[in-house]
Amino acid sequence: MPDKVSETLARYVVESRPADIPEDVRHEARRALLNFVGCAVGGAGEAGVEIALRVLAPFSGERTSCVLGRRERLDPLNASLINGLTSHYHDFDDTTPKNYSHTTSPVASALFAYASANAVSGEDLFTAFILGFEAASRVGNSVYPGHYDTGWHITGTIGTIGAAAAIGRLRGLPVRNMVWAIGLAATQSAGIREMFGSMGKPFHPGRSAQSGYLAALLAEQGFTSGNLPLESPRGFAAVLSPSHDFSKITDRLGEDFDLRENTYKPYPSGIVIHPTIDACSQIRAAHGLEPGDVVSVHLRVAPIVLDLCNKKSISQGLEGKFSVYHAAALGLVRGKAGLGEFTDEAVNDPEIRRVRESTTAERDETVADDAVVVEVRRRGGAEPIRFALDHSLGNIHRPLSDGQLEDKFRDQARQHLGDGRIDELIGLCWRVDTLDRAGRIADLAVPPG
Amino acid sequence: MPDKVSETLARYVVESRPADIPEDVRHEARRALLNFVGCAVGGAGEAGVEIALRVLAPFSGERTSCVLGRRERLDPLNASLINGLTSHYHDFDDTTPKNYSHTTSPVASALFAYASANAVSGEDLFTAFILGFEAASRVGNSVYPGHYDTGWHITGTIGTIGAAAAIGRLRGLPVRNMVWAIGLAATQSAGIREMFGSMGKPFHPGRSAQSGYLAALLAEQGFTSGNLPLESPRGFAAVLSPSHDFSKITDRLGEDFDLRENTYKPYPSGIVIHPTIDACSQIRAAHGLEPGDVVSVHLRVAPIVLDLCNKKSISQGLEGKFSVYHAAALGLVRGKAGLGEFTDEAVNDPEIRRVRESTTAERDETVADDAVVVEVRRRGGAEPIRFALDHSLGNIHRPLSDGQLEDKFRDQARQHLGDGRIDELIGLCWRVDTLDRAGRIADLAVPPG
Repeated sequence: MPDKVSETLARYVVESRPADIPEDVRHEARRALLNFVGCAVGGAGEAGVEIALRVLAPFSGERTSCVLGRRERLDPLNASLINGLTSHYHDFDDTTPKNYSHTTSPVASALFAYASANAVSGEDLFTAFILGFEAASRVGNSVYPGHYDTGWHITGTIGTIGAAAAIGRLRGLPVRNMVWAIGLAATQSAGIREMFGSMGKPFHPGRSAQSGYLAALLAEQGFTSGNLPLESPRGFAAVLSPSHDFSKITDRLGEDFDLRENTYKPYPSGIVIHPTIDACSQIRAAHGLEPGDVVSVHLRVAPIVLDLCNKKSISQGLEGKFSVYHAAALGLVRGKAGLGEFTDEAVNDPEIRRVRESTTAERDETVADDAVVVEVRRRGGAEPIRFALDHSLGNIHRPLSDGQLEDKFRDQARQHLGDGRIDELIGLCWRVDTLDRAGRIADLAVPPG
Repeated sequence: MPDKVSETLARYVVESRPADIPEDVRHEARRALLNFVGCAVGGAGEAGVEIALRVLAPFSGERTSCVLGRRERLDPLNASLINGLTSHYHDFDDTTPKNYSHTTSPVASALFAYASANAVSGEDLFTAFILGFEAASRVGNSVYPGHYDTGWHITGTIGTIGAAAAIGRLRGLPVRNMVWAIGLAATQSAGIREMFGSMGKPFHPGRSAQSGYLAALLAEQGFTSGNLPLESPRGFAAVLSPSHDFSKITDRLGEDFDLRENTYKPYPSGIVIHPTIDACSQIRAAHGLEPGDVVSVHLRVAPIVLDLCNKKSISQGLEGKFSVYHAAALGLVRGKAGLGEFTDEAVNDPEIRRVRESTTAERDETVADDAVVVEVRRRGGAEPIRFALDHSLGNIHRPLSDGQLEDKFRDQARQHLGDGRIDELIGLCWRVDTLDRAGRIADLAVPPG
């Protein structure tokens, strides 16, 4: 058994100082939080959120925490759950391509719920976020890809650990209690990929945020867990993954930061279909295609694409987020893929359906995860259009700029907040680490009543 | 992929009628509930329960539900968690030997929390319990033993599904929503065996009860999950187990009932060390052994014993529950193994420690799970004492009688409730299915203020 993996990680989360975190990592953390708040506000009006708020209302303690994007208030544990649900609802939040986790959602959902109800400085929340993100992502790296391939929604599983680490850091847990917080989180780690395409998927980071938050509070008070929760023969890695590499948790702690490789989506869908959307949109624009021009489409895609997004026969908007066929149809028919392209209406649009059903996809080991090769046969065209995309927009090699992130924020927040408030909120996110009270961001993300 | 496993199970839980349940199953259900209430009251004063109550208090909604064995009231979701924690705290609750799950705890914990806060007849709670137990246990059978061997605490994982089915039944969910309830439960299924020997273990049925209850309420309101949560390639069975057999879920529904094979523990420890306690206690009595007489002990045990309970170097009472060496020492030194034998004091008792450390154990494929072969070398004895036990007390072949179950109830409840109230409570449990209001049991299990 490896030596003290959980303890090493716990010690890092407990003892790391803000000054130890390089400025490039800090800037990426600001980008991640800006994107997170925009996604949470953008998802706040969805059907599953309404249901969850209605169900949870009778089970809320003192309503000391606001919910991002909503006027209802809840206790912080319940607010964590709703923040996670809203921020992942559109599958528009960030992704760490090393492990395909959407790590910010569970970690930041707990933190903003906590900060709304408690006096927490911007710097403290900011540091807790960076360390919680890092803890979760490193645990993810240690079990990726076996864990994910088994069928775990990694955002749900490692998110619980990240939320526990982040809240534990804010609460000032000593190392022993931080190990227990990680343990009580690990033993609540859950979320199966069968939920993809249903409300169960965004429920994962919500429940993870809440479970991790609870784990930290219990551990703080001396509620024990096993002392080797990540590395023991019956611990997280051995139980939830066929293989693991603990050096990915413990090596270069404080030097490497996964936030450096965080990416932000231009389209609210599973990230592995982004190259197809991007390439098909470019083909449409370059060739001036009308929807009726498209006879058939053939895609050559990375293996993970068909593993995750191989649904062609779909009828619900949420399913469209995980259909590479829908992705191709959106690019070719509409030339865009915003929130309006993953609704039930869009999925059942006759022209989109026709192109989707005329699309085939082929697994190609030589195609990278962020690339695609597209062939479109068009009416009257002797030769098919061929286009190979090497790097999709939003990928680490073609990241969204700070300005594009702001535009994305505005697009999502506009239906809930006025322009003035949006400007102010964007400003607060860029200077989160300087705020006297981090909860100001959460408070400002509430639509005025 | 097999056909409609989740839907078949959901339909059974929705459509089965009380009259379809045979009387022998009903009587075993009464025994299970009596044993459950006694365990919950018996565990209500423990340290982890105090911590959890303190931590959860600020996060409780309207306090409409009592907590078994406690004067505090909580909302029903939080009460579910505490009921699960208390009833499994001493590892004294029931066990289904087919899958080694303690199934009653998560299911009944949610039901009594619900019934304390809502108008539910005894018959309705009783039927929901039997069906929730059966749903959970069948899911457990479908993945046992691979699931358990992987390192899952099966009580935590399938308990979530059982609680969802039971609460969903009480709420009158239609089949489609019951499938979602099972799905939202399955995607919260968690609990790793690294928690054994810590407060994290009894936390599992607590969190499972709460998660399952929440799953049912969400599903009732239309919160969706995947439609094949148990059987799809990324569903519960495929993700949480290396192998599975869905016929164990769907075959002979309504004819076979796992409650028929439920067992009740005479000792508050992991069940696989019961044969060792029993055999060593018998040796002590038969040979009039004094503690100092024991020179060394050698055990031949079923493989599962060393897989689960191979800890010799221990210092905490909770660890003693999972040490076959401690089990041997208890039998030989004290001739009994009650709640007082799994305390920190007992684990650190010098004489018990000496005998524990003089004990060795050997894996023997020919020894059944409920058997053991013991060899004791004693001071001045030329030949070792040899004793083979075929069936441990409390095993399905030597079940506790109704009277012994009542005695066990009294032993556990005495520190919290007076004799008159205990008598009344035992009476209510025996006629639970006839009560106008099932919540009377929960209410009566509260110590008078």
